[in-house]
Formats: sequence, C-alpha cells, structure tokens
Amino acid sequence: MNGFILDSRLASDCHQLGRVDNSLLLLMDNSLVPWLILVPMLDVTEFHELEHDVQLQLLEQINLLSAYLKHEFALDKINVAAIGNIVRQMHIHVVGRSEQDFCWPNVVWGAEGRKAYTEQEVGDISSSLINRLGDRFIPYPQG
Amino acid sequence: MNGFILDSRLASDCHQLGRVDNSLLLLMDNSLVPWLILVPMLDVTEFHELEHDVQLQLLEQINLLSAYLKHEFALDKINVAAIGNIVRQMHIHVVGRSEQDFCWPNVVWGAEGRKAYTEQEVGDISSSLINRLGDRFIPYPQG
Repeated sequence: MNGFILDSRLASDCHQLGRVDNSLLLLMDNSLVPWLILVPMLDVTEFHELEHDVQLQLLEQINLLSAYLKHEFALDKINVAAIGNIVRQMHIHVVGRSEQDFCWPNVVWGAEGRKAYTEQEVGDISSSLINRLGDRFIPYPQG
Repeated sequence: MNGFILDSRLASDCHQLGRVDNSLLLLMDNSLVPWLILVPMLDVTEFHELEHDVQLQLLEQINLLSAYLKHEFALDKINVAAIGNIVRQMHIHVVGRSEQDFCWPNVVWGAEGRKAYTEQEVGDISSSLINRLGDRFIPYPQG
C-alpha cells in the first residue's frame, strides 16, 4: 500500500469518504444516485488477477456497501461493476438504483445528468456509514 | 435448481452454451464483443443476497471466464458486472473489451451495434471453452 496514489480522474470526480477495511471508499460527486466506489490500494487492473484473499475482502466490502445502500435509500436495485475502460486503476462501483432515478433503467456509466453534493450531504452520508458500518469504516475528515 | 426457468429476455438475446459448474453460461448474440453471462440457477435478484457459498462459486466462475476471455481474444480490459435493472433474474456479465471494439471506451450496456453470430462461430466458442475449461464446462448441443 506504500506509495499508493489514487487515480487523478477518480480523485477529481469523487469525494474521498475514507476507508472500508483496507480499500478506499469514494462517493461519486453526483447526488442523483447514491454511487460508491471501492478502490483496493494495489497496483492491479483486472479483478480476476487479484489474489484470492483480496477478492474475498472485496466481496465482503461489496456485500457491506450493498446492504448499507439498501438500508439507507429507497432502492429497487443494486448495480455492482468492475469496468475500468477509462480509469485503469482497479475500482469497483456499488450503485444504488431506483426506478425513479435520472437514468433508469439505463446504466449510470456514460449517462448524462449530474448534481454535485453539498458539504452537508457528504457529511450526512459519512455519518450514516459510521452508524451502519461501525469500525469497518474509517472516515476521513470532510470539508 | 428444480423448476428454474431462464428469463425470457436472456433466452431470446443469448445463445445458451451450457453450464459452468452449476451456473448457466450464456453468450450474448453479438459477435462485436465476446460477452458471456453467468446465471446461477437460483431465485435471487441481488448479488449481496446470495449465500456466501454461492458467491464464492460465482467468484471462481468469473475468474475462470475472465482468464478464458483474456487467453482467447485480443483484449485490453475485462468488464464484470451485476446490473439487472431490466432483467431481474440474477445474472453476471463477463465482457471482453478491446480498444478497437464497437463502443470502446463506453460500456456495452445500452450501446447500439449488433452482429449476430453464425452457427459456426458459436460452435467455435463452445469448443474453445471445452479446451480451456475442461470438465468445468458442460456444453449444450448447439444448432
């Protein structure tokens, strides 16, 4: 993990909420959908090339975030994906989808429509992650 | 698995190649990208609601198919996703992407462009799966 640098596009598109276990937890800066991103701090591009242990950790983190999203928001579906065509640094999207959201039933990747979060909203999401995930979530200072 | 019926949209959009272990293996009928779909034969919609054992099996199947795609095709990236906004029957996309393919770097979901496979091409893919996956792949008769 030493020397790990978050990809500049992820850094500019997202709020860095903190960590879930050993992965960075990002929030896409688009309040039109709750869109979380896990970034394992490793120099790997493809999910299937991760070591088994890391895959298992990510699996658990995906489960945790999916359950969190379902609990906190009125959702009809969770979308989970490892894509990385544009940003090669390995990252996994966990997106809460609702039949009322801005691009339903299309996927969020490439969909037009964006509304930046307020500082207050990001703080609220961070708080709800603390409540739900306990010490599995290590928040970064916001604002 | 008793009484499991493949969703009608998946059935009409895809070739049913066979099974990988206990999951159905589909091939999206679009030869513009190698696009495989795993369908665990269970009545579940969300990945995180699958039992841990089933998640581990799927993980292994995803790894197997990702490595197969990388080996068989000239690819730049693997895209793995559980979306299900339109078809709620749990299914996982494992898609081989190339910088030269029809919709790069956009995602394949919702992208326009389609070229049906010939019977011969589907047979060739099935053969290469047999070669690569051995008895983990149980082919269905094609044609």
